[in-house]
Amino acid sequence: MKASTGVEHPHIILQDLVSSRLSPSLMDIKIGARTWAPEASEEYITKCLKKDRQSTSVSLGYRLSGLRVFIGDELGFYKPERDVMRKAGPDDVRLFLMKFVSSNLESELESGSESESKPDCSLAASVYGGENGILSQLLELKAWFEDQTMYHFYACSLLFMFEKGLTSNPEVKLIDFAHVEEGKGVIDHNFLGGLCSLIKFISEILSDTNDLKNGLIEP
Amino acid sequence: MKASTGVEHPHIILQDLVSSRLSPSLMDIKIGARTWAPEASEEYITKCLKKDRQSTSVSLGYRLSGLRVFIGDELGFYKPERDVMRKAGPDDVRLFLMKFVSSNLESELESGSESESKPDCSLAASVYGGENGILSQLLELKAWFEDQTMYHFYACSLLFMFEKGLTSNPEVKLIDFAHVEEGKGVIDHNFLGGLCSLIKFISEILSDTNDLKNGLIEP
Repeated sequence: MKASTGVEHPHIILQDLVSSRLSPSLMDIKIGARTWAPEASEEYITKCLKKDRQSTSVSLGYRLSGLRVFIGDELGFYKPERDVMRKAGPDDVRLFLMKFVSSNLESELESGSESESKPDCSLAASVYGGENGILSQLLELKAWFEDQTMYHFYACSLLFMFEKGLTSNPEVKLIDFAHVEEGKGVIDHNFLGGLCSLIKFISEILSDTNDLKNGLIEP
Repeated sequence: MKASTGVEHPHIILQDLVSSRLSPSLMDIKIGARTWAPEASEEYITKCLKKDRQSTSVSLGYRLSGLRVFIGDELGFYKPERDVMRKAGPDDVRLFLMKFVSSNLESELESGSESESKPDCSLAASVYGGENGILSQLLELKAWFEDQTMYHFYACSLLFMFEKGLTSNPEVKLIDFAHVEEGKGVIDHNFLGGLCSLIKFISEILSDTNDLKNGLIEP
């Protein structure tokens, strides 16, 4: 492909993933207990390792780096403070994953702080569940990561997207390729482990929601 | 259970895993890119991290910590030097996994150093393959690790065992529980990632052996 100068250059084509969506709810999850490649500089490794240990990267195998949930045209978005997300522990992360698919977040906006009321997970079945849902897409990605040995994705994120409405059209995209390394014949066990851990949390939210619907557990 | 003093005490029952075997071939593989628990002391973490980075733990998600392969009553065992194992890179580890199921290791003994000749993997199908083979047992273990959130196994090993003969009776055991921590509702993504990486290598050795047998690839 020719650059504007007329010279042939390899190009990276960027895609605006949310351009086709009106008011998408978004979650950005950085996958992997380790965000540094083995070949990185000592300085960079020390910096990353500190963040990995302070966040849930080491404990959960992933950490939240962005979240906004559409509530309504008037109220806009629920969007937790950056600081709240950074300090989130494993239980907080589980709660954020529940809030992402909940419709009772108005109180979060009013109080201005994280609410005590339990997220209702009313959209869990349509966003996380179903044959085109996020869980199904994650399982497809998992099968690929169990086999592919071309790339290792460090500090990459999974972006979850959906829109409130009749067809929520949930979608998962792999984003942020600044630290992709060659796999050299080895699977990306670091990404895969974190992905499996995320799949487990989302499966649990889905099955808890089903049990609640079927009256098997108390709200 | 009562101790020798007559007082009730919780007991750990130890099992000698190889007592029923005559000349078992053994491989000890420490699983997990990270051998330290998040709660460990800084000193311990620094020590472990250094070893994890120097060995294949970080790159492969596991490292070899012991290997002996029975050759015959007269020649005894092929047993690489501790130092050779410690310095092994990913390609060396793949070679050791091949040697474990090979019958042409005599030259290794004679030369006293690692041989140039390619391991024949003549026992791959009967030890790694088959419905009771090591790969099948690893896949069963993987399914358990994808779900269980009770324990996190740090610096634990998988022990592979088999005997040369009509029934090689291959077996996989999880050993060395000195650093097991509570899982607190999270899967052991660190162990699982390494396990998947090991499964990939063993699957490749098996399929290469099959292709060789079927004339699809050159020796």
